[in-house]
Amino acid sequence: MQLGLVGLGKMGFNMRERLRAHGHEVIGYDPRPEVSDVASLADLAGALGGPRVVWVMVPSGHITRETIAELAEVLEPGDLVIDGGNSRFTEDKPNADLLAKNDVGYLDCGVSGGIWGLENGYGLMVGGSEADVARAMPIFDALRPEGERADGFVHAGPVGAGHYAKMIHNGIEYGLMHAYAEGYELLEAEDLVTDVHGVLRAWTKGTVVRSWLLDLLVKALAEDPDFAAISGYTQDSGEGRWTVEEAINHAVPAPVISAALFARFASRQSDSPAMKAVSALRNQFGGHAVQRVSESG
Amino acid sequence: MQLGLVGLGKMGFNMRERLRAHGHEVIGYDPRPEVSDVASLADLAGALGGPRVVWVMVPSGHITRETIAELAEVLEPGDLVIDGGNSRFTEDKPNADLLAKNDVGYLDCGVSGGIWGLENGYGLMVGGSEADVARAMPIFDALRPEGERADGFVHAGPVGAGHYAKMIHNGIEYGLMHAYAEGYELLEAEDLVTDVHGVLRAWTKGTVVRSWLLDLLVKALAEDPDFAAISGYTQDSGEGRWTVEEAINHAVPAPVISAALFARFASRQSDSPAMKAVSALRNQFGGHAVQRVSESG
Amino acid sequence: MQLGLVGLGKMGFNMRERLRAHGHEVIGYDPRPEVSDVASLADLAGALGGPRVVWVMVPSGHITRETIAELAEVLEPGDLVIDGGNSRFTEDKPNADLLAKNDVGYLDCGVSGGIWGLENGYGLMVGGSEADVARAMPIFDALRPEGERADGFVHAGPVGAGHYAKMIHNGIEYGLMHAYAEGYELLEAEDLVTDVHGVLRAWTKGTVVRSWLLDLLVKALAEDPDFAAISGYTQDSGEGRWTVEEAINHAVPAPVISAALFARFASRQSDSPAMKAVSALRNQFGGHAVQRVSESG
Amino acid sequence: MQLGLVGLGKMGFNMRERLRAHGHEVIGYDPRPEVSDVASLADLAGALGGPRVVWVMVPSGHITRETIAELAEVLEPGDLVIDGGNSRFTEDKPNADLLAKNDVGYLDCGVSGGIWGLENGYGLMVGGSEADVARAMPIFDALRPEGERADGFVHAGPVGAGHYAKMIHNGIEYGLMHAYAEGYELLEAEDLVTDVHGVLRAWTKGTVVRSWLLDLLVKALAEDPDFAAISGYTQDSGEGRWTVEEAINHAVPAPVISAALFARFASRQSDSPAMKAVSALRNQFGGHAVQRVSESG
Repeated sequence: MQLGLVGLGKMGFNMRERLRAHGHEVIGYDPRPEVSDVASLADLAGALGGPRVVWVMVPSGHITRETIAELAEVLEPGDLVIDGGNSRFTEDKPNADLLAKNDVGYLDCGVSGGIWGLENGYGLMVGGSEADVARAMPIFDALRPEGERADGFVHAGPVGAGHYAKMIHNGIEYGLMHAYAEGYELLEAEDLVTDVHGVLRAWTKGTVVRSWLLDLLVKALAEDPDFAAISGYTQDSGEGRWTVEEAINHAVPAPVISAALFARFASRQSDSPAMKAVSALRNQFGGHAVQRVSESG
Repeated sequence: MQLGLVGLGKMGFNMRERLRAHGHEVIGYDPRPEVSDVASLADLAGALGGPRVVWVMVPSGHITRETIAELAEVLEPGDLVIDGGNSRFTEDKPNADLLAKNDVGYLDCGVSGGIWGLENGYGLMVGGSEADVARAMPIFDALRPEGERADGFVHAGPVGAGHYAKMIHNGIEYGLMHAYAEGYELLEAEDLVTDVHGVLRAWTKGTVVRSWLLDLLVKALAEDPDFAAISGYTQDSGEGRWTVEEAINHAVPAPVISAALFARFASRQSDSPAMKAVSALRNQFGGHAVQRVSESG
Repeated sequence: MQLGLVGLGKMGFNMRERLRAHGHEVIGYDPRPEVSDVASLADLAGALGGPRVVWVMVPSGHITRETIAELAEVLEPGDLVIDGGNSRFTEDKPNADLLAKNDVGYLDCGVSGGIWGLENGYGLMVGGSEADVARAMPIFDALRPEGERADGFVHAGPVGAGHYAKMIHNGIEYGLMHAYAEGYELLEAEDLVTDVHGVLRAWTKGTVVRSWLLDLLVKALAEDPDFAAISGYTQDSGEGRWTVEEAINHAVPAPVISAALFARFASRQSDSPAMKAVSALRNQFGGHAVQRVSESG
Repeated sequence: MQLGLVGLGKMGFNMRERLRAHGHEVIGYDPRPEVSDVASLADLAGALGGPRVVWVMVPSGHITRETIAELAEVLEPGDLVIDGGNSRFTEDKPNADLLAKNDVGYLDCGVSGGIWGLENGYGLMVGGSEADVARAMPIFDALRPEGERADGFVHAGPVGAGHYAKMIHNGIEYGLMHAYAEGYELLEAEDLVTDVHGVLRAWTKGTVVRSWLLDLLVKALAEDPDFAAISGYTQDSGEGRWTVEEAINHAVPAPVISAALFARFASRQSDSPAMKAVSALRNQFGGHAVQRVSESG
């Protein structure tokens, strides 16, 4: 089928390629002319035959909001917009409501798979009406991994459910990554273990901890033994924070995901104000650094 | 080759089956006559042609220690003992030293894969000398998953390294399981998500969080939707505790693995003495339960 | 000076008493006629000579918002409103803006001390303009503990700073209480310690951990040894959640305060969905509960 | 009464002074001749009239063990040794047993108060027999803060109970300090709060969080605003680690104390191997640092 695709960055570019490889006609728009198929959103609307389906794949937050507001201007009743970016699920209802004023439909679609999705397919979590989901299904079927539909696609619920599920997916991802990371550090710390890389690789088949993330960890260590070229400074992109905020909203204990999030915060501090306070307190009650009898009070 | 196998419980029984299926001659001993091939450890030693290789697969702790002490009596110089149980890595050096007095060799082998290992093969992490590892390699090759040896087997270092690696494997496992568990609870908590099971299943292909544990979670939910028949009361079996203890020994922060461990402790408390203290404190400074203006101080 | 006081619950009632004991004229309003000095907010405004100062001490959230909106109707230019409740600091700017439309001033004041404040005085953290703070200073001086003003009162910054400081105060309070609570549980768990209450009491003087909360813990245990009559089920009242949310907003690691918050969430669950998932996973890979060789994979 | 005191470092030196000020005869031994009253432990034994009481106040671990072993040589039946250092409670039984061979008694005494104990008195937690405790009571009464004995002294249980209680005291101390530290960092992070030092000082009276540690924090900030001269690099001295190990031994959840401990570990890392692994993983699935659409998978 025909699809308009707004945003041809790392994710959108690959998705256009995968969709075309599956026989769909994709007209892509991006502000960078060298990758874009049309010159503007208006041109995109003009190039698509109605009723249109337009997939938005741009950075979450104000850029997504503005893109959808612009689409609300150029689209027509009966068209459908899909937000495939990492928007917070609370954005979906307002976006849907805005588009509904002009009888334009809306789906939110969480997309996982990163740069590997081009080859492996993307895991998809969709929120919206049955009718809208059914209409976009050929696109979803092309993007998702091959095999049974239910193994890589879900209609998770009404508008917002797709991004909620993607948010939780990423929150889990934080926890999984940090669990492996702690294990890696513990292996490195122990002299008995002379082949850390070998241990991680030996876990990739047969063990309880085997996973795609473990495969990637083994690959990363093969490319950069001891992670010599990599700093521990680690960004976070929103979903981890939102997951902890939802844990708070729902009164759900989330010690693992929050620990992983806080470790990222700490990784970006050159020194910790909190630890300065702790250190100052120890000095106050225990005396100066060199102590003969008792280091702490 | 020929192997003596001590312990025919859930793990040992399956391993005997897998080894025989790969053409090895396995003589098993277990105190339960209905599964045992011989009547005693002495009979086992007698039935094996020297130099013998004996795999010990019994509960960790005093049972493993006693079994190895008994083997030290009945084995002969040149024989080899492999402890494949979940022993703490600190047990390995004493076991090796005891056997070495009679020139009996020793390997420690962490084994992962649970009840699925019979079919899929077991992930193996081994500690000991090159020569001893080489000698037992046909057994390891039969037990490990098919494919490249390095994807399911590692010679991790000297005696102790195998169990250390297995301990860390299980520590990671605690963290991974709890990350999925928090995500599951957060999905269940949100009304927008009308198909929690579907979301988890949709993650099994293409996504960043896909893993064998996720496959098992989907399977478990299919068998028991909403986990109606399952209590949250969860045991721990040593490796999680030992992992946190090693984190302390090595001054490695392990907030994720420790959070997962503490959650298991909490799951077994009918009420929390700590929370009683917190509740009592709130009453002390804030007055009784019903408060009009300010619930907390 | 003269003060209007809206809300005569546990906190407001005591504050009226303390202010009157310090020679101030307090006219209190509460929907419960048996404690109220006037019949309505309009009556309160009428009874106060201008320019008025009105202290609001009602539950945070919509009740505070509605009370301030009503006051905006009945007050006059030059009057001053002080929100002394546990409002989220993000409420203060909108409240101040609403009142400013009619040239009514606004201060936010975090108040700590609970039911003990009547006797000991209340710790006060205030946000707003210098002029407004100066105007209400006689009230603050009567409410705060005796001694140096700076030991129980702070003008923390512009509108919002007072409630922000109070929020952080309560977040710290969560962490402190849980630290003592963990220590209490660990003392109870160890057979060597035959006099847990005595240990806690011995800490109340001379030690590093001495504090008012510790005094209260000792008092609570004296009243109810072993906390036999107290459930661990523990509410939370907003500030702990908001503190963790601000930690997220500011990318500040807050593992201690969040752990204390999550422990409260967990205390209110009859069973943990997350732990059901963990338990189900263990069953999946490890077989049924009774295992001979290896409990975990 | 007469007391031998071994170890005249920061703690022992002050304790000698306080004991003498209370009228006790203290003969101190320290390897540094400039502070020592006698030349050797043998001389100390010779200078004391029997039955002797000797207080050991030296660094925990092998130095304490060796000191007590030496005392076992030079003391006589009926003498009494008190270990007042920060020994792990598991050391006490072996020490007591060693001394008991020669009918020398043993008490373990946890001492809190740091460099302030000279003036304020020390909080004391003692393990041992009733008779031995009674015998040393004049010393305990001189060391503890003035006022009721039970407010600064406890006979916590048999040998080991004193050090156990001191260990838990220090574990709590870790949690308390970190709770304040997180709060301090959150105050510093918020622009609305223009007087962080003032806020902390205003908490010292009347509030729920008032404590001696808070007083010290205010004092530390007065001496070094913004902690400009202090690094966050923070040592730990054993009791925090042991507390978490006991939490594990007793299956007691200790998320707050362990978080405080792990934060100290992290403060000493120039870069975190775990965070390198997390960062490497993000690169693997999400592509390079600059991403247009979706930063994480």
